Amino acid sequence: MRWNGWGDPARATPLPAPVTGLLRDWLGVRPRGTRAARLEEIAVPGPALDESARQALLSAVGGRTEYVRTDAETRIRHTRGKSTPDLLRIRSGDVTDAPAAVVLPDGHDEVLAVLRACAAHRVPLVPFGGGTSVVGGLAPGRRGPFVALDLRRMNALLDLDPVSRTATFQPGLRAPEAERLLNARGFTLGHFPQSYEWATLGGFAATRSSGQASAGHGRFDDMVLGLTLATPEGTLDAGRAPRSAAGPDLRQLVLGSEGAFGVVTSVTVRVRPVPRVRRYEGWRFASFEEGAEALRRLAQDGPRPTVLRLSDETETLIGLARPEALGSAGVPGAGQPAGCLAVVGFEGTEEDTTRRREDAAALLRDGGGTYEGEEPGRRWADGRYSAPYLRDSLLDAGAFAETLETAAYWSRIPGLYTAVREALTATLADAGTPPLVMCHISHVYENGASLYFTVVCAQGDDPVAHWARAKHAASEAILAAGGTISHHHGVGTDHRDWYVREAGPLGVEALRAVKRCLDPAGILNPGVLLPADPGA
Amino acid sequence: MRWNGWGDPARATPLPAPVTGLLRDWLGVRPRGTRAARLEEIAVPGPALDESARQALLSAVGGRTEYVRTDAETRIRHTRGKSTPDLLRIRSGDVTDAPAAVVLPDGHDEVLAVLRACAAHRVPLVPFGGGTSVVGGLAPGRRGPFVALDLRRMNALLDLDPVSRTATFQPGLRAPEAERLLNARGFTLGHFPQSYEWATLGGFAATRSSGQASAGHGRFDDMVLGLTLATPEGTLDAGRAPRSAAGPDLRQLVLGSEGAFGVVTSVTVRVRPVPRVRRYEGWRFASFEEGAEALRRLAQDGPRPTVLRLSDETETLIGLARPEALGSAGVPGAGQPAGCLAVVGFEGTEEDTTRRREDAAALLRDGGGTYEGEEPGRRWADGRYSAPYLRDSLLDAGAFAETLETAAYWSRIPGLYTAVREALTATLADAGTPPLVMCHISHVYENGASLYFTVVCAQGDDPVAHWARAKHAASEAILAAGGTISHHHGVGTDHRDWYVREAGPLGVEALRAVKRCLDPAGILNPGVLLPADPGA
Repeated sequence: MRWNGWGDPARATPLPAPVTGLLRDWLGVRPRGTRAARLEEIAVPGPALDESARQALLSAVGGRTEYVRTDAETRIRHTRGKSTPDLLRIRSGDVTDAPAAVVLPDGHDEVLAVLRACAAHRVPLVPFGGGTSVVGGLAPGRRGPFVALDLRRMNALLDLDPVSRTATFQPGLRAPEAERLLNARGFTLGHFPQSYEWATLGGFAATRSSGQASAGHGRFDDMVLGLTLATPEGTLDAGRAPRSAAGPDLRQLVLGSEGAFGVVTSVTVRVRPVPRVRRYEGWRFASFEEGAEALRRLAQDGPRPTVLRLSDETETLIGLARPEALGSAGVPGAGQPAGCLAVVGFEGTEEDTTRRREDAAALLRDGGGTYEGEEPGRRWADGRYSAPYLRDSLLDAGAFAETLETAAYWSRIPGLYTAVREALTATLADAGTPPLVMCHISHVYENGASLYFTVVCAQGDDPVAHWARAKHAASEAILAAGGTISHHHGVGTDHRDWYVREAGPLGVEALRAVKRCLDPAGILNPGVLLPADPGA
Repeated sequence: MRWNGWGDPARATPLPAPVTGLLRDWLGVRPRGTRAARLEEIAVPGPALDESARQALLSAVGGRTEYVRTDAETRIRHTRGKSTPDLLRIRSGDVTDAPAAVVLPDGHDEVLAVLRACAAHRVPLVPFGGGTSVVGGLAPGRRGPFVALDLRRMNALLDLDPVSRTATFQPGLRAPEAERLLNARGFTLGHFPQSYEWATLGGFAATRSSGQASAGHGRFDDMVLGLTLATPEGTLDAGRAPRSAAGPDLRQLVLGSEGAFGVVTSVTVRVRPVPRVRRYEGWRFASFEEGAEALRRLAQDGPRPTVLRLSDETETLIGLARPEALGSAGVPGAGQPAGCLAVVGFEGTEEDTTRRREDAAALLRDGGGTYEGEEPGRRWADGRYSAPYLRDSLLDAGAFAETLETAAYWSRIPGLYTAVREALTATLADAGTPPLVMCHISHVYENGASLYFTVVCAQGDDPVAHWARAKHAASEAILAAGGTISHHHGVGTDHRDWYVREAGPLGVEALRAVKRCLDPAGILNPGVLLPADPGA
């Protein structure tokens, strides 16, 4: 993973020349005057961990110094996550949020020992899986040295039950590796979020990740059947049966707790047979409204596709679904409106896929859709993990690119869409960087859907501050329009203030009570999810 | 509702003569020597509510005395729930768990006021919906006077959103009334547990109810999108979107909290169009093992029926699926083994139902099933709510009849089935009342299933004590075999000790922390779900 960008440097996606022109002429993007900092130039600031704490951590991981790392490069590589502000700050050499040490435990008992050591020494601890948070989930809200708990050594498939179709994984396993292990036994997890290539199973659980095949496979929190959580106060195990009436669902208390309640040390998930057929296709609708209506009908009455997404007019035109051809469809107003492109994918057996396709096609056609063949589906599938690479190139070129997302009941979707678009457009235009705002629906339910917005504009003088204002306005618009502050990115520190309003004072107090019970010293990811406890 | 039995007295189901003979000859059932107590004979014991508390409650419900009832009949009618021990105790005139007063609030604000009054006066409060708990959920574990909060006045459909397909109800509405209101608008909830005719929507939420159409419609906790909870500390609202990554799911903390965290004052649920076709059919398998395997394949790979249940050999033989004909299939060993009967039901549009039926039939046939036509399905549908009526007649005849249930992952189902059967059989045989133990699978998931046991034996000297021992042994067997202590009956007081072990010490502490936060005086259903807080 690039320390100041996304993914494998060998897979960098340069911007095509027409895009550079488009950015310049239409959004006023200018090349950046400043050179990005180089890793070896960056001085990582103190304060360091005190020696007694370091010794306690060392002893928690078997006394081996390679598992308590304090070198500059390791610390820089564990600084914050991968939001655009995170990248802009680290590119400028700002590593003020670097951990004082990176600890690499091997197994549940070592995690418990590390947590006890941190609690005893009052050292905050941030669980670190793939490091892909885009909501500030990896930088604690309290000052002073902290530890990043890197879970990469805990990367085993612990159990596969082919009868019950369940698999138990350690948390630090990255998703492609989990798929490889399952595929070898004929199974798949079916969880393919955009962060797929780097994110870990523990991270998916802690943040309630949702993948691009959620229409067919559900969200990650739907897949989770069991969890083990290591906390400073001991171990919590949940999930003796798929479903139970024995009290509140403790799994659902751990899912989405973002490391604030403990460290997920194993996760048992539903697995399914590897589909024999995968078929992704394009459909075009005259408008986002018409397309959203067709998606709703499919989600409510139709056979459920495995993948179901719909880009709005702007996103369709810009063709973000095909990043390597960004802008190839022309610029807004330059030609006929392109309508809205949907990608509809089916996975399963040959027979089942064929039938679901036919039934869905009838419903989509009835909803005004035009079949566009497999080419748009293939393009989407080829580029499904490339957007973060493209963002790096945009940042290099002096553009700003970021995303945000929400969800609501179907009847609120049109109002939510308009409110968020307008908030983003108005705020960034005011800042002198009028944006391109694109949106798609990528997750559908019987009762509602998600909206995923992508914003591209010039960086301007102070892109981090400009974006903070735009994001603030968008978050206010989301709450006012009845949406949730995050459908699948999570809360982190970035969404915390709105999350607190969404959960309400009593909801927050209940969660704080859980946190105080599991983490009385308040060392676990302080300031992430919930405001740091002033009493801790 | 009968005060000392189930349902509408006009619908009492007398035992057919052959059944009486079977009970006598095979289980040694003898008519009871004692006459059941009559309502007007029963003296309800004190202690009464103190006058200042009564005044505070009165003021919370607008000063109208008809909403703070202390007459004997009302108190008797709110004594405990409908487990067999509950019925045996009340039939003997034991009303030691009668509430001191029954309060009937109208609306969320009155509930809040009642809760504040109870907290101020340290009076325990038990929320009371349909009064159908079979796990001791309506008798607090602390001595002294308590209040039953009867929610029957809060019985409105507050909102129906036909676009999002959501409906918001007050908690005290009974299920048939909710269906009637929804049906009039073209929708159904699709939730039909055995308690359907009497249970309320708030009760379904508080106890994680699961209905007989759960294969197609899901459990009640799957249907819940939003909740409002009134607590002594204020209001908690949850559910801005079908799904969210904004923190732990607070809905899932309220669902299953059984009145220990607060009173559900509104619940927003997913609704669906009324199915045009309903078709229930019978399939026969050579053994429970073979049938369970076929159900598993259907749950994992097949088109999901709306109703899917499988009786074991004993239940099939005894024909509890057709209570009015109990025993008509002969007694075990009297003839050829009858195999195992499955009921497979489909609801939906004509076309969809036809197709799912055909696909399911192919899979069931492939799994060894024999199609038995619609007659067994019709019989099941006709008798689906009659088992509790039959129980009253069995109790009248001197027999003991009770049920218990669990769930586990598929690979554990055979071991769980054997362990629970053996525990029940051995304990009751030891007590001199060898039982008939029947079982069915009534809820299936991709990864597991529920097991529902029915036990019939002679009452013997002390049926409550005998059953307590048998239930204890069964609960131990459930935990040892990897099952959950309840799949859909809930925890109440009866399952509490095993629930505490299932949740683990840290899970229990986390839930206690939530309870202390929402209910610092510990007045809400003390001893239900969690042990009564010694500090409260």
